[in-house]
Amino acid sequence: MKFCPDCGAAVERRIPEGDQLPRDVCTACGTVHYQNPRVVVGCVPEWQGRILLCRRAIEPRRGYWTAPSGFLEIGESLLAAAARETAEEAMAEVEVGSMLSVVNVLYAAQVHIMFRARMRTANHAAGVESLETRLCEEAEIPWDDIAFSSMRYSLERYVEDRRRGDQPLHFYDLTQRQGHH
Amino acid sequence: MKFCPDCGAAVERRIPEGDQLPRDVCTACGTVHYQNPRVVVGCVPEWQGRILLCRRAIEPRRGYWTAPSGFLEIGESLLAAAARETAEEAMAEVEVGSMLSVVNVLYAAQVHIMFRARMRTANHAAGVESLETRLCEEAEIPWDDIAFSSMRYSLERYVEDRRRGDQPLHFYDLTQRQGHH
Repeated sequence: MKFCPDCGAAVERRIPEGDQLPRDVCTACGTVHYQNPRVVVGCVPEWQGRILLCRRAIEPRRGYWTAPSGFLEIGESLLAAAARETAEEAMAEVEVGSMLSVVNVLYAAQVHIMFRARMRTANHAAGVESLETRLCEEAEIPWDDIAFSSMRYSLERYVEDRRRGDQPLHFYDLTQRQGHH
Repeated sequence: MKFCPDCGAAVERRIPEGDQLPRDVCTACGTVHYQNPRVVVGCVPEWQGRILLCRRAIEPRRGYWTAPSGFLEIGESLLAAAARETAEEAMAEVEVGSMLSVVNVLYAAQVHIMFRARMRTANHAAGVESLETRLCEEAEIPWDDIAFSSMRYSLERYVEDRRRGDQPLHFYDLTQRQGHH
């Protein structure tokens, strides 16, 4: 941030009085502009044992596979966002279930929260952000072509938990970008 | 947002191509400035059956009680943030446990995530944002003087779950400000 979103004057980076961290502070109106991590939310939709994946039509990681997910919007709940992203990216209707994972993507200032989900029907199709969608048996999951290491982590936990018949919540921190992911 | 944080020019509110929602878009450099909910994270610290609460020294809701919580910062995990807030507000050291609640505070563009926690020692004291701290027996919890309805919801679930010896994860949506909370 270089300019104050409120008044347009220059901002400076400094620790405000009573604070512990440097913030963007307007040199004219004095407003402190906090920046915080963004929430990415999604789900792993399942239909009769198969998992719904989407091949990304957009950057980053165009052509790679992911479960439906995207940024939480103002005015929606985590559960609503997970269902909306599934409708948009995979044109599928889901009932969102238990929370699967929280991945703190520290280098990207993001928190990725994934849920388990059950598809209400077998219908799915590529939305505008997807090249294709596919219902994958476990052996068909393209592990080496998953778009993000956070998503690969969550999908791995999903299939492991399912084998054991358990639904725990997993926590994981990603402190640095891994390879091209 | 009135001015572009990148170039200082005026922004306009419109739906960018390929998007579904109105965003702040710079009229000069074209940058789309997304705004997303912020994450507030905290915990319910327990010591030998008693719960650690803080009386707020700052607005909003100065003088009212809360469990330690605050905004997630860039570069920290949810668990680290819950422990940091407890250290700052109640000068207590905690081991953060299971996730207790996710409250979507829709009118405030916030997600409140609370954890269960165990204090490592009996030590606690008011940090700069607190007037006092107190280890409360369940009967001593000042239910009518809890600062926020989101926090009251989480504390209620905490004590109910504890009676049953259970640790589920609760979801709740707050769609409008309740009374003075």
